[in-house]
Amino acid sequence: MKFSNWLSQRAVQKKDAIAIIYKSLSHREIWTYSQLENEVDRWVERLLGLGIKSGDRVGLLLANRPQYIILVHALVRCEAVAVFLNIRLTTEELRWQIEDSQTKYLICDEFTQLTANSLGSRIEDLIIENCSITPARSPLGGGSSSINLDNIQGIFYTSGTTGKPKAVPLTYNNHFHSAIASALHLGIEPDDNWLLCMPMFHVGGLAIAWRSVINGTAITLLPKFDEQEVLEAIAVEKATLISLVPTTLNRLLQHPNWQNLQKLRAILLGGAPASPELIDRCLQLNLPIMPTYGMTETASQITTLLPHEIPLKQGSSGLPLFGNRLRIVDLHDTEQELPTGAIGQILVQGASVMGGYLKQLENKAVKDRWLYTGDLGYLDRDGYLYVVSRRSDLIISGGENIYPTEIEAILLAHPAIAEVCVVGLGDREWGEIIVAVIVSNTELSLVEIRDFCEQKSLARYKFPKSIYIWESLPKTASGKLLRQEIRDRLETK
Amino acid sequence: MKFSNWLSQRAVQKKDAIAIIYKSLSHREIWTYSQLENEVDRWVERLLGLGIKSGDRVGLLLANRPQYIILVHALVRCEAVAVFLNIRLTTEELRWQIEDSQTKYLICDEFTQLTANSLGSRIEDLIIENCSITPARSPLGGGSSSINLDNIQGIFYTSGTTGKPKAVPLTYNNHFHSAIASALHLGIEPDDNWLLCMPMFHVGGLAIAWRSVINGTAITLLPKFDEQEVLEAIAVEKATLISLVPTTLNRLLQHPNWQNLQKLRAILLGGAPASPELIDRCLQLNLPIMPTYGMTETASQITTLLPHEIPLKQGSSGLPLFGNRLRIVDLHDTEQELPTGAIGQILVQGASVMGGYLKQLENKAVKDRWLYTGDLGYLDRDGYLYVVSRRSDLIISGGENIYPTEIEAILLAHPAIAEVCVVGLGDREWGEIIVAVIVSNTELSLVEIRDFCEQKSLARYKFPKSIYIWESLPKTASGKLLRQEIRDRLETK
Repeated sequence: MKFSNWLSQRAVQKKDAIAIIYKSLSHREIWTYSQLENEVDRWVERLLGLGIKSGDRVGLLLANRPQYIILVHALVRCEAVAVFLNIRLTTEELRWQIEDSQTKYLICDEFTQLTANSLGSRIEDLIIENCSITPARSPLGGGSSSINLDNIQGIFYTSGTTGKPKAVPLTYNNHFHSAIASALHLGIEPDDNWLLCMPMFHVGGLAIAWRSVINGTAITLLPKFDEQEVLEAIAVEKATLISLVPTTLNRLLQHPNWQNLQKLRAILLGGAPASPELIDRCLQLNLPIMPTYGMTETASQITTLLPHEIPLKQGSSGLPLFGNRLRIVDLHDTEQELPTGAIGQILVQGASVMGGYLKQLENKAVKDRWLYTGDLGYLDRDGYLYVVSRRSDLIISGGENIYPTEIEAILLAHPAIAEVCVVGLGDREWGEIIVAVIVSNTELSLVEIRDFCEQKSLARYKFPKSIYIWESLPKTASGKLLRQEIRDRLETK
Repeated sequence: MKFSNWLSQRAVQKKDAIAIIYKSLSHREIWTYSQLENEVDRWVERLLGLGIKSGDRVGLLLANRPQYIILVHALVRCEAVAVFLNIRLTTEELRWQIEDSQTKYLICDEFTQLTANSLGSRIEDLIIENCSITPARSPLGGGSSSINLDNIQGIFYTSGTTGKPKAVPLTYNNHFHSAIASALHLGIEPDDNWLLCMPMFHVGGLAIAWRSVINGTAITLLPKFDEQEVLEAIAVEKATLISLVPTTLNRLLQHPNWQNLQKLRAILLGGAPASPELIDRCLQLNLPIMPTYGMTETASQITTLLPHEIPLKQGSSGLPLFGNRLRIVDLHDTEQELPTGAIGQILVQGASVMGGYLKQLENKAVKDRWLYTGDLGYLDRDGYLYVVSRRSDLIISGGENIYPTEIEAILLAHPAIAEVCVVGLGDREWGEIIVAVIVSNTELSLVEIRDFCEQKSLARYKFPKSIYIWESLPKTASGKLLRQEIRDRLETK
């Protein structure tokens, strides 16, 4: 179905309203909707001039900055497909993704230019852009004025916490329905201003840009997550909404100005399961926390728990957003739907769910429009989702299924434990044994840890068999624990 | 595209939240979302039991009542197409529409039973329903759990102010995008409660039902428009939004309790152009008035002017809602797009615009997804729409195009004139001559009227050549002037 270009419509309706506030250490920029549209016009002309055609795949190798959003909109008008590249990847990893996605052009900036150069040989053209572009004559308003909602807007690579990343193509329909479902769940207020401090190359960052243009509201964009900058932006720029992962929320709570978080009307919490302690603490501090469940394949949040629901539904990720459905199926027999309360694989269906991975071979993941997430969870009788574990994280020890998040939640309640990751390591006797990697400021012994688990009534077979104290835990750019990397490090020790 | 059933989703998410408050003189009923869903379940079973199949056309010959909304949702689940019948039509007119739409079943209630009986011979089945249905065992939850957005939800007949009514098929997509565009323009607040006092058989009434279920908010439903009941419902039921036509708004302003209107957050004004006097008065009274433009073919409002825009954009119907586009073309050469400010035919494109009339023969009305509305208007340089006249109302006198609404707006400023309709009557010398039919409490002479037009600097060729004082003007159920009927009455005099 065809739809008028989202930004162009907002440029008419919201003209002088603020689209983007960009704050970096050195400066502050304001972009109104009509300024944004004018700059997009210029870029469209430039990109078309370079020969970019409908359907071409164009890699974006950029950090967060207004030009990121501008280029995304310009590619929409060129009917090109954006390939969202993680700037923290190694050259080898980028090369693989560029080849896999058949990226023809690569757009970089002064910070990613070196990396881009080293990739140059594999791509047809390389656009070096220091973003001080000289204005091209008068805007021609080239490109397409409408969006075919069924087309692919962009390709994301899943964070790759385990195995090779998979290419997730998301259509305009996916993004549109994700934004609408979010608006229907959270409401829309005229002074909404979403603080974007996640990388734009993750769907959680990009989704904020879509929501804002579809709702016609503002974004406060930061180059990256920084506690001081985030808390200041809330106070100074009057941001009202934010998306965080547990790690970044934790860091904000440790900052002396954490109270600024109370000015927000919503704190969306996703990316990884949040510990009950973190959620409790937010409730005590009167923070409008909203635990969510979502993934790249669902164009961001697909369930959301509202603050007033938390006391009744502790540990839940909430109800599916409008337009989405959930189903829990047996781990071994995926044809069998499980009853209320039983743990199984989480299936998701809805207008924001991808049609399938780019490579057909991997498409056993989507059947009959149901996405087999590989995650484990259950539904309560009111239909609320409880995510138990990422499937790939499941530990099988002595024939028992053990969910590392359950043990992690208990260990995080220990006052001396700041961060923790529980993994299973290969063991001849048990299949796997449970190992806890802990970040802590004080000395901690295995005995203390096991005593604490005892106190918390954890089943003995779930007690860690050994512990490691590390200075920090490796995470993805969006703050998810890199469990595979942690496992790998432990196994090579 | 498939989408989860709208009501079923809300029945999970909003369970005990109020879906409908129904107030009639004799009683008050409350329906929560889960009660509504349960009652729909029962009706689905009953309708399927009667043999209603996917694609069957089912006529609804009912006044406003909760069962109307319940039946609409039940037909969604049966994948049947609702045919919205105006209960004020004559038997002959209904017979024509039933035949034209190939209606197989007719649902009526105790008030429309007699009419339905007299139509009985033409339809396969006739469901007499006094709405005291005995509960069917336990709900089976039959019917489809998903909605194919591309399917036709219902068929409306255009009000028929001129000529034979045309059958307008609206898809679920049309309704969905209409509701979403409205939400994006007006915002969504958790305590939204839309006062539904227009007939459900007009798209303006039905659209409120869709918006509410999609937004998950409440409706206060009245059997019909009544000043006293409307103003009381605002105060007692805490309605926050209302849709009116100029006539009903005028009547509310004349009621001693008009101040209750100030409690609303939005008053959508559609159906017919509002006079500048009416809009000014609302502004002075601090009423959150929103003039709109829309029609059955666009699934209700397609442009809306927000209260804060009124002082700057007097006489405008606002900007197109998100997802819609406007274009003005030459009256004679519809291929030629007109520049800013020039009056021509209004073309509309967007996701809520119908694909075409039911009968293919009439489909010159939609070309390239552009609906040729037949209405006249222009766009200002900011893209705001000004509706000048319904095309069929255009008077051509002495070769000059004359828009009756312009003259009506001036005459309505006269303190003694309550209502007015200006039409052209056939004349050998002039082609047409201008006649004003006036509703007034005092004596008025043609000389006085012409003097008043003079004072208001109206061009002389637009002065009425004769006036008629009537007790009231004939209108459609939705409050639009029946210009053709007024013309007919004058011509047979």
